[in-house]
Amino acid sequence: MEAWFFENQTGNFGIKIRIKKVLHHEYSSFQEITVYDTFEFGKMLVLDRAVMFTERNEFIYHEMLGLVPLFSHKNPETVLIIGGGDGGVVRECLKNPFVKHIDLVEIDKRVVDISKEFFPGISAGLDDKRVQIIRDDGIEFLKRVKDNDKYDVILIDSTDPVGPAEGLFKRDFYSSAERALKCDGIFSAQTESPFFNKDLIGDINKIIEDIYGESSLYCAMIPVYPGGLWSFTIGSKKYRPQNIHKSYKGLDFASLDLKYYSPEIHTSSFILPNFVKEICKP
Amino acid sequence: MEAWFFENQTGNFGIKIRIKKVLHHEYSSFQEITVYDTFEFGKMLVLDRAVMFTERNEFIYHEMLGLVPLFSHKNPETVLIIGGGDGGVVRECLKNPFVKHIDLVEIDKRVVDISKEFFPGISAGLDDKRVQIIRDDGIEFLKRVKDNDKYDVILIDSTDPVGPAEGLFKRDFYSSAERALKCDGIFSAQTESPFFNKDLIGDINKIIEDIYGESSLYCAMIPVYPGGLWSFTIGSKKYRPQNIHKSYKGLDFASLDLKYYSPEIHTSSFILPNFVKEICKP
Repeated sequence: MEAWFFENQTGNFGIKIRIKKVLHHEYSSFQEITVYDTFEFGKMLVLDRAVMFTERNEFIYHEMLGLVPLFSHKNPETVLIIGGGDGGVVRECLKNPFVKHIDLVEIDKRVVDISKEFFPGISAGLDDKRVQIIRDDGIEFLKRVKDNDKYDVILIDSTDPVGPAEGLFKRDFYSSAERALKCDGIFSAQTESPFFNKDLIGDINKIIEDIYGESSLYCAMIPVYPGGLWSFTIGSKKYRPQNIHKSYKGLDFASLDLKYYSPEIHTSSFILPNFVKEICKP
Repeated sequence: MEAWFFENQTGNFGIKIRIKKVLHHEYSSFQEITVYDTFEFGKMLVLDRAVMFTERNEFIYHEMLGLVPLFSHKNPETVLIIGGGDGGVVRECLKNPFVKHIDLVEIDKRVVDISKEFFPGISAGLDDKRVQIIRDDGIEFLKRVKDNDKYDVILIDSTDPVGPAEGLFKRDFYSSAERALKCDGIFSAQTESPFFNKDLIGDINKIIEDIYGESSLYCAMIPVYPGGLWSFTIGSKKYRPQNIHKSYKGLDFASLDLKYYSPEIHTSSFILPNFVKEICKP
């Protein structure tokens, strides 16, 4: 007998992944959470029937969401991550030598628990003494950030813009994030597929440009996400995100266990195919 | 009622595409050929149950297989394409201002006929007076190329390495191609997925390096191919394929109707994620 997981990534396109076993299933207060063991990709986390990551390729999303903004910043000592309770982005952020403190604001504590139980290689950083896990709604949390607690970098590691993450794709939220950043702060968010979410990406980039004066889109290739090509949007108050900051000169990137990211990939991820460039044209 | 096309891209991973209609189906002398109309991607060509292209994203594969090698060459006047009877790569090659003659060697004439009937936007270049369509086995054709008929560029636009295309992934074939190239010639081939075909890519790059002294891998993102990330392998006798040749200085790339390729994408497509670089390490 063969068992398959199906995800309809659009109404008319989807993927199928052969599963060995359902390791866990529950409805938390916020979403449906399933952990599968698969033949092709190792263990896999699924929230509300959308694949978040698989063990075999989680490194791509986590490295690229975390490291591109962090290595654009001169000395990102304090980092705020909204979402990402699995700990993958935390693990990557801890590779930056300047990071002293990470606040992780996750609305659903069950994601943290389940990641610790089933994905120790992803969640390990959550126990680092520099990391504080805050169980809260990211939107409400941002409104309460005080002047002397502002962040160097804010990262939005959200699910798709439906359900609990919907508000994380709105202008009010982006404005609160800007206010919670120091005067040389950097904001970055995952912003869906350039093939299937053109209007969303265009809208977000317009808002980020309004707020920061400039918006930068970069891409990575993530096999289990719709279309494989994925986008991230950066707003930066001071630093150019297209290059790693000179403060990392001499850093031995080869020692950081990076399977996707490198200083060269950092820069080239901002070089976009023409059809993606078109999305952000005024 | 909903009808879906399923492709198992590996034994344990696949895609599903919702179809409006089967427009054509036949068994040619070489393979099963199906043309679907789909909701998400427009019309779609399927050979032996593997998606070759869809109208909505065919430009990526065709631009990247054709234009990267051609714009690396100072003046590619004569081009040989093995496979690619649909005409997509021909259409792109004709955008290079130096191209005077293209030989297209396609083993299955039915692919040419069907592309002309169902994909006029892709096959249009096949009727250009610079193009000669030769119905032959690419392996046999290459063995017969005479000294004064050698090519500037040879492109391998093959299906997967099973069935009719199997011989197009072997050392003997690559050696024949090298002999059919002029002394400053460039060879390029599609070489499958860096996620799912690591051993194949590693083997091919070893062979190309043996033959040309150096092998270069570049990638593009193709949504309907396994994993989205796709590789191409270049062997070059003289020119550095990582940059467009200075002979194109002043060319107005914006006039060439390019939806993916640009001089910047040309160079950045050779910048590989660490896990892809690993594949080609000695």
